Amino acid sequence: MHRYRTHTCGALRPSDVGGSVRLSGWCHRIRDHGGVLFIDLRDHYGLTQCVIDTDSKAFKAAEIVRSEWVIRIDGRVRTRPAGTENPDLPTGAVEVYIDDLEVLGPAGELPLQVFGDQEYPEETRLKYRFLDLRREKLHANIMKRGAIVDSLRRRMREGGFFEFQTPILTASSPEGARDYLVPSRVHPGKFYALPQAPQQFKQLTMIAGFDRYFQIAPCFRDEDARADRSPGEFYQLDIEMSFVTQEDVFQAVEPVLRGVFEEFANGKRVTKEFPRITYADAMLKYGVDKPDLRNPLIIADVTDEFAEDAVEFKAFKGVIKAGGVVRAIPATGAAGQPRSFFDKLNDWARSEGAPGLGYIVFEEEGGALTGKGPIAKFIPADIQARIAAKAGAKAGDAVFFAAGTEAKAAGLAGKARIRIGDELNLSDKDQFAFCWVVDFPMYEWNEEEKRIDFSHNPFSMPNFEREDFLALGEADSEKILGIKAFQYDIVCNGIELSSGAIRNHRPDVMEKAFAIAGYGRDVLEEKFGGMLNALRLGAPPHGGIAPGVDRIVMLLCEEPNIREVVLFPMNQRAEDLMMGAPAEVTPKQLRELRIRLNLPEKKG
Amino acid sequence: MHRYRTHTCGALRPSDVGGSVRLSGWCHRIRDHGGVLFIDLRDHYGLTQCVIDTDSKAFKAAEIVRSEWVIRIDGRVRTRPAGTENPDLPTGAVEVYIDDLEVLGPAGELPLQVFGDQEYPEETRLKYRFLDLRREKLHANIMKRGAIVDSLRRRMREGGFFEFQTPILTASSPEGARDYLVPSRVHPGKFYALPQAPQQFKQLTMIAGFDRYFQIAPCFRDEDARADRSPGEFYQLDIEMSFVTQEDVFQAVEPVLRGVFEEFANGKRVTKEFPRITYADAMLKYGVDKPDLRNPLIIADVTDEFAEDAVEFKAFKGVIKAGGVVRAIPATGAAGQPRSFFDKLNDWARSEGAPGLGYIVFEEEGGALTGKGPIAKFIPADIQARIAAKAGAKAGDAVFFAAGTEAKAAGLAGKARIRIGDELNLSDKDQFAFCWVVDFPMYEWNEEEKRIDFSHNPFSMPNFEREDFLALGEADSEKILGIKAFQYDIVCNGIELSSGAIRNHRPDVMEKAFAIAGYGRDVLEEKFGGMLNALRLGAPPHGGIAPGVDRIVMLLCEEPNIREVVLFPMNQRAEDLMMGAPAEVTPKQLRELRIRLNLPEKKG
Repeated sequence: MHRYRTHTCGALRPSDVGGSVRLSGWCHRIRDHGGVLFIDLRDHYGLTQCVIDTDSKAFKAAEIVRSEWVIRIDGRVRTRPAGTENPDLPTGAVEVYIDDLEVLGPAGELPLQVFGDQEYPEETRLKYRFLDLRREKLHANIMKRGAIVDSLRRRMREGGFFEFQTPILTASSPEGARDYLVPSRVHPGKFYALPQAPQQFKQLTMIAGFDRYFQIAPCFRDEDARADRSPGEFYQLDIEMSFVTQEDVFQAVEPVLRGVFEEFANGKRVTKEFPRITYADAMLKYGVDKPDLRNPLIIADVTDEFAEDAVEFKAFKGVIKAGGVVRAIPATGAAGQPRSFFDKLNDWARSEGAPGLGYIVFEEEGGALTGKGPIAKFIPADIQARIAAKAGAKAGDAVFFAAGTEAKAAGLAGKARIRIGDELNLSDKDQFAFCWVVDFPMYEWNEEEKRIDFSHNPFSMPNFEREDFLALGEADSEKILGIKAFQYDIVCNGIELSSGAIRNHRPDVMEKAFAIAGYGRDVLEEKFGGMLNALRLGAPPHGGIAPGVDRIVMLLCEEPNIREVVLFPMNQRAEDLMMGAPAEVTPKQLRELRIRLNLPEKKG
Repeated sequence: MHRYRTHTCGALRPSDVGGSVRLSGWCHRIRDHGGVLFIDLRDHYGLTQCVIDTDSKAFKAAEIVRSEWVIRIDGRVRTRPAGTENPDLPTGAVEVYIDDLEVLGPAGELPLQVFGDQEYPEETRLKYRFLDLRREKLHANIMKRGAIVDSLRRRMREGGFFEFQTPILTASSPEGARDYLVPSRVHPGKFYALPQAPQQFKQLTMIAGFDRYFQIAPCFRDEDARADRSPGEFYQLDIEMSFVTQEDVFQAVEPVLRGVFEEFANGKRVTKEFPRITYADAMLKYGVDKPDLRNPLIIADVTDEFAEDAVEFKAFKGVIKAGGVVRAIPATGAAGQPRSFFDKLNDWARSEGAPGLGYIVFEEEGGALTGKGPIAKFIPADIQARIAAKAGAKAGDAVFFAAGTEAKAAGLAGKARIRIGDELNLSDKDQFAFCWVVDFPMYEWNEEEKRIDFSHNPFSMPNFEREDFLALGEADSEKILGIKAFQYDIVCNGIELSSGAIRNHRPDVMEKAFAIAGYGRDVLEEKFGGMLNALRLGAPPHGGIAPGVDRIVMLLCEEPNIREVVLFPMNQRAEDLMMGAPAEVTPKQLRELRIRLNLPEKKG
């Protein structure tokens, strides 16, 4: 017989009845029925009810065990007495009568109960993470994370991708966030940086001719914590491909994401074909560049309508005169809502810094659509009808308005859309709704500095004929502001899983792109010199993307907090409470690294 | 037609003849036959011969391309003229006549030629790694590395293991090497450490109840470089299991290693069943704890023989009197070697600090084994025969002797065994010869400090009844020095792939183990307190191992230098010459991290 177990705690079935077995595991729950002890023995694979009474020679040993002690038992499998079966448990038809019991690992007083649903402060949970991880939900989340990562890997390989490992001790890269630095002992005064992303390495892998790269890549950013991002490290499904267009990236990535979501969605629907939404459309229709398509509401521009002479609503007229816009957010079925619904939305808008949200409630009167509400009277019926048509509103619906500069109106309308959808319970949450956002503008006008600046990623390839791009001049600023980049976002349920791009692999185009934004060759060389040198020695066209693994897992586990899907996370203050990191180090270590602390003076 | 390619450069076959195709890739080699240009177009998947002459409208464009330019061509597939086929190339029966050609990525002057076998200094190769990686051998090595890692993963999953990701920003662990430190911005004066190995995390994963852990784990040690270890980071196949004995670990790991070696051995033999050799046996028979079993020679102890009164060889007698030993290394078939063979070995032994290697050459004279050579005359024939028998030597063989303290004699004999095997070409190198080394002693006598000390890993479980172990006292030192640990090494071709152990999961046993070696509870708590706390809250028996991925790949790629099997390695001085790491950072970064440089004064 094996030293510790013949079966796991999830294995026994009625067909095992009568057999002698050995099990090892944790005492999940112990019930003392006076002379009869029930011990639910738990391991990774399941739970088995074990029983002992005073007839067993092991009874004395059994009496001392407590919750979370690790024990080994030998016993005989028997059918549970009629009426005591547990159909929710795969082993629920049987129990094991304990003949022998050995304590393998006793447990002291528990700071956190594994059995049951009691809630504990995050500090306790993180300090005793190894106990918290024994609890059902967290244990299942971590296993699901592993299965998702396995599935991503399998799907990438099946798609013709190869996995590579890029360095973790490396140089600072121009990603924009703060680097974690590692002092070099061998090179005093110099530092490695942990990669914010393997962006340059994956591009160099393409320049080295490897064609299809992926990596479940650890990334490091010294940023303040957010609920959806661990302080410190996080993982992305890093992808890069050579000789591809944007469309090829979509065709490669879409089946991987759809497949993994379908596999782990627990029956929720997953978008069959990911719609592509231009950045301009997203900002107009959803008021945000990461639309949540579960919400069916679509924003419309009604600036023209409010600009009509016949409309007498002065507040919006003023906005339009100053170059602003008016956006209409439909509120399907809101006509039946009480006054408080409208007031609450107005209050919310004011808390967002807006003067309020105007609205019209549409009703049917004598076969015609009639607008009601505080501003309806300023708008003639025919224009009301045009507004309703643009916003897709029918009798029984309301339409809210957000006015302001294009950016402000879009932002407010976007937030209002989400609130209205939530309030009216319009979103079908039983789905993972994906889309691609495409055609990001390459440049934008920096009003403050009165100059053209990069809008998003300066290293993306402009969607513009190369010769024409190189020929652009000072007079072409309107043309320049219209240039789109081959840059795209993948969005699921309003969460941006990743940006991606076809990279600018032509040094001449990159120099021109930077020159347009007012950066000299020196700036480019300084920030990106190593990469430029590589691009000058035979670079293929290439592009990629890097969906966040943690975010994917959070969506699939329905967990809003990343610490519920990471094995050993740090807390919000970037501390590992279990291991005690970060910690002080010895003066010898500092001397070896040729650094000194530079602490603020302690106040007496 | 796709923007860049209808086929890869490895795809075309005779069945494609007559078709119009589009290819993209690097100009591997360009041959100018006066009005006819042959361009071998290369990508990750293969090489296709492309041809163009002055009849093509693209000839002018083709004339300017050079080696390593990235181009796209459109053309027609045709059969190569008879006699010019290349049977070594999958595409070797066809060529593509170029109708159109577009430069996708030009290349400047190349610091390193991709085509051909020219050697370059390591500095050039590392600085232009992306060029070096385009070369056939290195490209193949990196792809093989990826395939090996994939195979390891698949085999581990098939073996019932789950993959987990453990933190990279963590606390210092008691592994013994130097940590890489990361200053914390949020906690001034405190530092994270990069993990030397996820040892504590994998044990905590077991204590958390996950049962079967593995990870292709990045590990970080700030050690000076060696050929077989990258400075900085390396990868191990990190494994841990709960409720297991040492034998279970062997049964889990052996098929994974055997399988992956059989898969990638290119026909070399792989040990079917890994022999288990005790540490004591390994030190005796192979003079080392990582025996290279390709070498058939087995060392024997002949101390008793030389101790006989009838033997008059004073040098060895003195050694034996002082408590030393004499070891015999057979040299199969060495009798026919010239005198210089023996002299060279003697010289080598002296360079190792030994007084020399005595030897006897055995010949057959009149049906009896007769010893020849400088020391034979001091040894009576019957004792010579006993020595020959112990060393497995027959007529025509020689036997060398190493004498000294047990450690010194074993070490010298072990090295001599390798040299003799190599000189006589006795090893069958066409194999991967595995073994387990087991039964490492838990303790050893520290002669200098006259006390008992840990011999190897203080955290391994002693192979000793728990109650008896806890009862050990001061008077039991002989018993203590005889205790073996459940610790083991996996060795292939004389290279240690990993140590492993059944962990000491009982705090009481661990305290006792440390007490025996003279360490108080305070030392243990300080070094290992977090882990001890976890062990006190219900820990299962568990154990594992962590074979080095880089070493496995080096063996399977037959590369003695780790930089040939890592995608973007650092050089021996821990520098990334391509990315320029480590590098200086800004005063602002240092201020944010609350550290200052502490550089040595520059000498005027």
